[in-house]
Amino acid sequence: MKDFRIIFQPGALRQQAAAGTSIMEAMSQAGLESDFPCGGMGKCGKCRVKVIEGLAKPTSAEQSRLTRQELEDGIRLACMTEIQEDMVVEILNPKQLKHNILMNSVDRPFSVQPHLRKFFAEVSQPTLSEHKSDWQRLRESLAAQGDMNNLKAPLSTLRRLPDMLREANNKLTTVVYDSEVLGLEPGNTTETMLGMAFDIGTTTIVGYLMDLNSGKELEVVSTLNPQAQYGGDVISRITYAGKQENGLASLHKAVTDAINKLIGEAAGRAGTSRTNIYGISIAANTTMHHLFLGINPRSIGVSPYVSAVNQGLVVDPSELGLEINGAGQVFVLPNIAGFVGADTTAVLLATEPDRREDVTLILDIGTNGEIVLGSSKKMVACSAAAGPAFEGAQITNGMRGAVGAIDHIKFGDNLEFTVIGGGSPAGICGSALLDGVAGLVELGMLNKRGKFLMPDQLTNPESLRFKDRLIEYEGTWAFLLADAGETLHGRPIMITQNDIRELQLAKGAIAAGVRILMESSGIQPEDIKEVLLAGAFGNYLNPHSACVIGLIPRELETKIRMIGNGAGTGAKIALLSAGEFSRAGDIAAAVSFIELGSYSRFNIIFAENTYFKLD
Amino acid sequence: MKDFRIIFQPGALRQQAAAGTSIMEAMSQAGLESDFPCGGMGKCGKCRVKVIEGLAKPTSAEQSRLTRQELEDGIRLACMTEIQEDMVVEILNPKQLKHNILMNSVDRPFSVQPHLRKFFAEVSQPTLSEHKSDWQRLRESLAAQGDMNNLKAPLSTLRRLPDMLREANNKLTTVVYDSEVLGLEPGNTTETMLGMAFDIGTTTIVGYLMDLNSGKELEVVSTLNPQAQYGGDVISRITYAGKQENGLASLHKAVTDAINKLIGEAAGRAGTSRTNIYGISIAANTTMHHLFLGINPRSIGVSPYVSAVNQGLVVDPSELGLEINGAGQVFVLPNIAGFVGADTTAVLLATEPDRREDVTLILDIGTNGEIVLGSSKKMVACSAAAGPAFEGAQITNGMRGAVGAIDHIKFGDNLEFTVIGGGSPAGICGSALLDGVAGLVELGMLNKRGKFLMPDQLTNPESLRFKDRLIEYEGTWAFLLADAGETLHGRPIMITQNDIRELQLAKGAIAAGVRILMESSGIQPEDIKEVLLAGAFGNYLNPHSACVIGLIPRELETKIRMIGNGAGTGAKIALLSAGEFSRAGDIAAAVSFIELGSYSRFNIIFAENTYFKLD
Repeated sequence: MKDFRIIFQPGALRQQAAAGTSIMEAMSQAGLESDFPCGGMGKCGKCRVKVIEGLAKPTSAEQSRLTRQELEDGIRLACMTEIQEDMVVEILNPKQLKHNILMNSVDRPFSVQPHLRKFFAEVSQPTLSEHKSDWQRLRESLAAQGDMNNLKAPLSTLRRLPDMLREANNKLTTVVYDSEVLGLEPGNTTETMLGMAFDIGTTTIVGYLMDLNSGKELEVVSTLNPQAQYGGDVISRITYAGKQENGLASLHKAVTDAINKLIGEAAGRAGTSRTNIYGISIAANTTMHHLFLGINPRSIGVSPYVSAVNQGLVVDPSELGLEINGAGQVFVLPNIAGFVGADTTAVLLATEPDRREDVTLILDIGTNGEIVLGSSKKMVACSAAAGPAFEGAQITNGMRGAVGAIDHIKFGDNLEFTVIGGGSPAGICGSALLDGVAGLVELGMLNKRGKFLMPDQLTNPESLRFKDRLIEYEGTWAFLLADAGETLHGRPIMITQNDIRELQLAKGAIAAGVRILMESSGIQPEDIKEVLLAGAFGNYLNPHSACVIGLIPRELETKIRMIGNGAGTGAKIALLSAGEFSRAGDIAAAVSFIELGSYSRFNIIFAENTYFKLD
Repeated sequence: MKDFRIIFQPGALRQQAAAGTSIMEAMSQAGLESDFPCGGMGKCGKCRVKVIEGLAKPTSAEQSRLTRQELEDGIRLACMTEIQEDMVVEILNPKQLKHNILMNSVDRPFSVQPHLRKFFAEVSQPTLSEHKSDWQRLRESLAAQGDMNNLKAPLSTLRRLPDMLREANNKLTTVVYDSEVLGLEPGNTTETMLGMAFDIGTTTIVGYLMDLNSGKELEVVSTLNPQAQYGGDVISRITYAGKQENGLASLHKAVTDAINKLIGEAAGRAGTSRTNIYGISIAANTTMHHLFLGINPRSIGVSPYVSAVNQGLVVDPSELGLEINGAGQVFVLPNIAGFVGADTTAVLLATEPDRREDVTLILDIGTNGEIVLGSSKKMVACSAAAGPAFEGAQITNGMRGAVGAIDHIKFGDNLEFTVIGGGSPAGICGSALLDGVAGLVELGMLNKRGKFLMPDQLTNPESLRFKDRLIEYEGTWAFLLADAGETLHGRPIMITQNDIRELQLAKGAIAAGVRILMESSGIQPEDIKEVLLAGAFGNYLNPHSACVIGLIPRELETKIRMIGNGAGTGAKIALLSAGEFSRAGDIAAAVSFIELGSYSRFNIIFAENTYFKLD
């Protein structure tokens, strides 16, 4: 098949692509990270690019998603445009390609107790009367250093031992995991012992380079999850893994390749080599966990939504294609259920509700909200299908919390908002949607069911100053945040009736989850001593707004604390401490999972919670 | 480089070979098994072939090893003849290509207790309220069947589990080793569980196909060790592994390929598949052990002759390239020392001297003789470098115990001998050399130092009837066994002065080893209750002859018992019983190894033992 040349602007990045390939696929092949929330189905319209050379007729999906002006300007959807000739394509708003990723975290004390240990050994010379084997002499040298009497060696170690002993003049360092000598290094290398903790999210992957001896964090690296090219959310990726030929293998390779790149980047920045990395820990939601391991996640996608495996695992990096030291091991945290994954376990390991007598409510809100309620007596968890509204998808002018996004809105004398990275806004992200809707609720501009009041129905005097921002849009009403002249792209940014409906569904799902966990464990709001918000969205939202719209019970507003990337923190703890990694298994097993769909009154509770509480 | 076509006769087997390749290499590439005792150095002259087309000038090695008549007849040495054109080559005496391999054995009671176990599981269906993972449900089904509460699964199992469960309608069989579920099979396959025990000798490899459930032996297969193309004895293979590029890899591959072939052959004969084989056990001398595992044996070849590893090992078949069930494991018996290998451990496992209060002397005589002396109180072992005389190498008309070999000689009224396979003799093997020399000793035809008496010096009247068989040969004397007219090849077969010298060195080494083990443990001949002879040579020799020449102390003649392939029996026991495999480690550790070279009076004892005791 014929190959064409695509040049991506800005930057003039060149890429070969086979005829019939989509621009989206070519972007992915070129290593360009972008955002395809609908999984390349032509539905969300988020992958706008400008075709400068090689423009063809728009597809019907493009005709329905793009304005006439956009079509005339050469704007197309990257996922829908097939390459049939050489092209020059401009990536619109390339800043959007870089994400803000949350990297702060809670701190909690624990002892560094690495999974893998290094021991320096000076091995004795054999003699005619002391003719012990190489391995026996090494074992005896190690046994003298501690309780290592039953050491074993895999074949790979035994194959290297004879040459290594003689080349290193009998002085070498062993890398020991459990009771196995997994690695041999010439000389004394005990001081070099690095590891990486990863939080693999559906959207982003964050990696922390850690010194396993000191416990010190050396570097933080991150990337968008390149699996996004196969689908923006877990369900579309589960579908892709199950239906496409080599789908599972492609998704598995995408994430492990990304992790290998991050390892290289972190090592490079720290001035070290990937071969000095001996341990990797993994926190991920259950689907990302399965895809990372190359396990088909299909049963997660259909009722009763079970995973293939939840148990914590220790895996050889070579089985995953991960490029670190050959003696290294990968420590995969345990899942709790199909939709409450190892990332939640990691958050629990970081926050330890199981060690508090007081009840803690923990929320990690994204497309799926994982909610845990509990104490040392009992822990219950559920997953609430919030949908993409909090991440800015399915929202008229929605976008992720990236440069150009309005992230906070304040209704004072005037409408004020802040934009990530400063400058003109390109859209709104979830936290701003929360602020906006909360403001509209407080101003009495929405009714209990979330419908805009018509301008002449407004009674609250505070609301009158924003009356002009109520505009008609697609046969109903919308609230204008920024008019065309103020925005980056010259189109107005608003909160539409539909956006409010999407938010109601999202917050209703989370609030219903919280309510059901409380009901099923007999806990009242006043019993809850602390509400911990984990994850990117949780860290950016305004707690007051969250309580006003009813995402979180209003009584808990003063008890809310943001803990940042709790999953990343848990992954770091699991990497640095074998005991804590093992404890993660106990924690995961102690959590009772409640499937909301099987809760008898779920539909009623959900419907109630989509409403707003007006003062 | 140009390729030539070689046709091997009889059989018209065709083989391509690059210019400059030796005929020996081409034979090996064609899968022809033959015998290269000197490792293809042109020294032993054993690899005679007849070049029918493409005859070139003989090399100097060929000129010195072959007679003028042979050279004129087109006889060449396969190891020395380079291929420079298309050729037709006749393999002389192709019967010699098939060996007599010892396959009988001792029997001793033990319980079948397989390493790997199969469990059939009917896994429950998940529900919305019982949403355990696939792996958790499988574990619970297995836990109900016994003490399997801490089962783990490698990634390979977890990757197969989701599809397997659904395709097999939740009914499947697990293959469990230790606490790991290594394999999954649809339906109930618990009745199928085979294994193979191997004894890897320097010369031959024997494999036993066993039913792991019943303990029954199903098939026995064998082949020459194809490593012979790289050297006939362990030292030349150690040299090849260390000096040649990819030498170790070639030797490793040669033996594992051979084992894969034997597995296929055994499975085929038994009407089953190699995927039904779940366990392999390995007995081998230390060098064969290392080469099988791909571990460089070079330290075995130089003082102080230590191995890289002695400990018993469990290895994944994929690490060795062995083609059996993916859940299978390879159980490698422990070595005792560089020259007392896992084959000796296997013999001890089969014969259990450690469980007898009486003292047993165990000899496994080959190029190296492994000798163990001991009881439940103490076991000592040594390796005596007997050299190749017992295997018919370095002997004027010597050959292995194959078809055409004189294997036993009797001096009655006439000289009588038996030939393996019947028919005319082609040479003599070690057992016949023993008989011949023992007869000459008893007839007083040799002096104490092993020198032939001249015909006129003979005094024993019994000897006079063999007087005419004393012939002059290369300036000294020889004893004619068969004249040119009686033999297969038309050349006389005799025992020369040099052959007697070779035998003296060989028996002196073994006898010195026995003496030193007795001395160092304070044991007198009368303390020894039984002498067990293991291995092919041990099984064919005449005990009386062995005692007459002083290979074994004369006092022990009536205590000698042949146990056949004790190493093979031990390998079978280790395959069938996890407990016995583990016990092999205790046995190996309980044996004290004595390096004869470090024994102060070794040279004197050795020299004394090269003499004959005349009545």
